[in-house]
Amino acid sequence: MSRLKTIEWTGAAARIIDQTLLPIRLDYADIDNVKDMFLAIKTLRVRGAPAIGIAAAYGLYLGVLDFPDERDMHDFLAYVDKNARYLAGARPTAVNLFWALDRMKKKAHDAAGASVAEVKAALLREAHAILEEDRAMCRAIGEHGFELIKNCRAILTHCNAGGLATSEWGTAMAPIYAAAERGIHIHVYSDETRPLLQGSRLTAYELVQAGVPVTVICDSMAAFVMAQKKVDAVIVGADRICTNGDFANKIGTYGVALSARAHTIPFYVAAPYSTFDPSLSSGTQVPIEERDADEITNGFGTRTAPQGAEVYNPAFDITPGPLVTAFITEKGILWPPYDTSIAAMVVPKE
Amino acid sequence: MSRLKTIEWTGAAARIIDQTLLPIRLDYADIDNVKDMFLAIKTLRVRGAPAIGIAAAYGLYLGVLDFPDERDMHDFLAYVDKNARYLAGARPTAVNLFWALDRMKKKAHDAAGASVAEVKAALLREAHAILEEDRAMCRAIGEHGFELIKNCRAILTHCNAGGLATSEWGTAMAPIYAAAERGIHIHVYSDETRPLLQGSRLTAYELVQAGVPVTVICDSMAAFVMAQKKVDAVIVGADRICTNGDFANKIGTYGVALSARAHTIPFYVAAPYSTFDPSLSSGTQVPIEERDADEITNGFGTRTAPQGAEVYNPAFDITPGPLVTAFITEKGILWPPYDTSIAAMVVPKE
Repeated sequence: MSRLKTIEWTGAAARIIDQTLLPIRLDYADIDNVKDMFLAIKTLRVRGAPAIGIAAAYGLYLGVLDFPDERDMHDFLAYVDKNARYLAGARPTAVNLFWALDRMKKKAHDAAGASVAEVKAALLREAHAILEEDRAMCRAIGEHGFELIKNCRAILTHCNAGGLATSEWGTAMAPIYAAAERGIHIHVYSDETRPLLQGSRLTAYELVQAGVPVTVICDSMAAFVMAQKKVDAVIVGADRICTNGDFANKIGTYGVALSARAHTIPFYVAAPYSTFDPSLSSGTQVPIEERDADEITNGFGTRTAPQGAEVYNPAFDITPGPLVTAFITEKGILWPPYDTSIAAMVVPKE
Repeated sequence: MSRLKTIEWTGAAARIIDQTLLPIRLDYADIDNVKDMFLAIKTLRVRGAPAIGIAAAYGLYLGVLDFPDERDMHDFLAYVDKNARYLAGARPTAVNLFWALDRMKKKAHDAAGASVAEVKAALLREAHAILEEDRAMCRAIGEHGFELIKNCRAILTHCNAGGLATSEWGTAMAPIYAAAERGIHIHVYSDETRPLLQGSRLTAYELVQAGVPVTVICDSMAAFVMAQKKVDAVIVGADRICTNGDFANKIGTYGVALSARAHTIPFYVAAPYSTFDPSLSSGTQVPIEERDADEITNGFGTRTAPQGAEVYNPAFDITPGPLVTAFITEKGILWPPYDTSIAAMVVPKE
C-alpha cells in the first residue's frame, strides 16, 4: 500500500502536498521559511485540522531559525511569540493551529534555561513529536476501528477525514487503511461532498493512491446506495463532539446518518480525544459557520444559479448522538449511553 | 407575477427558451423547421418530458408544411410518418415525445378525408391542443396542491418539475405559482440537484423570474434545513409512479423523503395522470438509467475526481410509497392506501 505523506520533514524544510492541485496533479512543496508556511496554510495548500497543527509547528521552528544564536534568550522568546502570533493569523478558526502553536511556545519557554541553539533544537523535536503523535493517534483509531468493520464489504464516507487531513492515515479512513495493510480491501463509497468536493477531490484521490477501491457518488446518491445494499457501514470524521454524543461535521453528515438509520446500517464517527469538547453538553450549543454563497453558485468557474436567488451555505451540520452507533477514538471505542462513556474518557479517573 | 413561456406559437414558429443558456442568459429561439426542432430537443435547448412532447408536436407540423397542397393524401401521410420517425430519434427514451408524435400521426390519418391543406391546419390545431391541455393539467395540479400547502411558510423541492419542464406552471411548482397568483408568497428551498444542477440552474431561475422567493442549497443541506425548521413541506415531481405508490424521480429524491419522514414534514409528489404506470406494481420493477461518469467528474469544465476512481451515476432513485404523504394530480389528491386510490384513478369506474 503506497501512502501519501501529507507533511514530512526533509532535514531543512517541511515538505507538503499542495492540496490545491489535487486531484489533477500531485505536487510537493518544500516550505523552508515562515512566510511561505503562513501562505500555505492560508491558501489551503495544507488543510485539515491536524495537518494544519503540524504545519504550524514546523513553520514556527522555521520562523525562529534566523535568530542569532549568540543573542539574548529573552529576545528569542519574544521572537518565538511574535512568529506564533503571525502564524495564528493564517486560519483564524482552526483550533489545532492554536493548540500546536501554544505547545511550541510552552516548549520554548520551559527550555529557556538552555542556549538559544538548544531551544531551537528543542522546537524542532517538538514539531517532530506533534507529527509522530498524530501518526500514532491515527494508527490507534485505525486499529480500534478495524475490529468494527473487518467483515464489511464496503463502507460509505463523507468529506475528507483521511490522511490528507492529518499526517498519514487520517481518522475516518484509518480503519480502511488498517484493513488494507492486512490485505483486506474494503470498498469505499465516497460522497463527493458539495460544495467544495473534498470527497471526490481528496478522499477518492488518497484512496486511489493507496490502492483502495473507491467509487465516487454525488451526496444525493448515498440513500439510494444504501437501499441497494451496496454499503455495510458508514464512517465519518467529526469537527466537534458534545458530551451527549451530538457532533458537528461537514454539512451533509446528518442526512447520511438519517439514511443509515433508515437502513439499519452502522454509523461510526472516528475522531481523536481532542475533538470531544467537555464545555458543550448538546449540539444546539455548537455555532454553525455559514460560508460564502459563491462556493455554491460559482464553484467551478461557471455561474450555476441565477442572480436574485438567495443562497444558504452552512459549512457544518449537527448529527444527534442517538444516530451514532459508536465513536472510534485512539483510546478505544465509545458506546452508548454517550453521556457516561464520553465523560469517562474526557475526564479519566485518576 | 411574470411567467416564462417555455414554448409558445408565434404564428409562424415555435418560440422556445434556450435552456442550455440558463441561468446566465434568457434567450428565445424561434424554431421554424423540423431540423432545428430535432436539434433543439436533442441538445436539451428544450427539455422536460411535457415540454418535449409539445415541441415535437409543433416540429411535426413544421416538418410537413413544405409538402405541396395539391399532391396526393397518401403521399402526405407517408411524409407525416417520416417526419415523426425523424423527430422520435431526438431523445430515444422520452415517453412524452412518442406520445405526442403518435397523437399527431393519428390526427393526420383520422382527417385523411379532407385536403392536404386542411390536414396541415388540423395538425397545427392538435399541437395547440397538446400545449393547452398541458397548461390546464399544470393549473389543475396547482389548484389541488394549493389547498395542501396554503398555510406553509416554506417548501423544499428537488430538481426541476417547474414551468421550464412543461408549458407554464410545471407540476411540483404549480401549487407555489397558484399561491403566488393569490398574493401568497411561499418561500422555496431548491436543492441544486447534482450532477446536472437543474435545481439551481432552472428551478431557482424560473422562481426568481416569477417573483417567488427562493433559496438555493446543496442537496446535502436538505436534512439540516429541515432540522432547523426552515421548511414546512416538500413537493417533488415524478418520472414514473407504480400502482403501490413507489415512484421514480431524480436521484436524491429518496434521501429527501427519508429526511422529511424523520422530521414529520409532509412529503408530496405532484404529477399528471400520465405518470402513473399501471403495468408496474412496485418500484423494484423500474429500470434505473445509469448515466455517464463525466457528469460527476467533469461537470463544470474542471476534473473534480481522480483518475482511477470508479463512479456510480444513477439518474433516478426509487422512493417507497409509504414515505409519500399524498400525490397531487390534475384529477385531485390521492391519499393512502395507494393501491386503492391509484387504482381508482388509473382505471376509473365507468
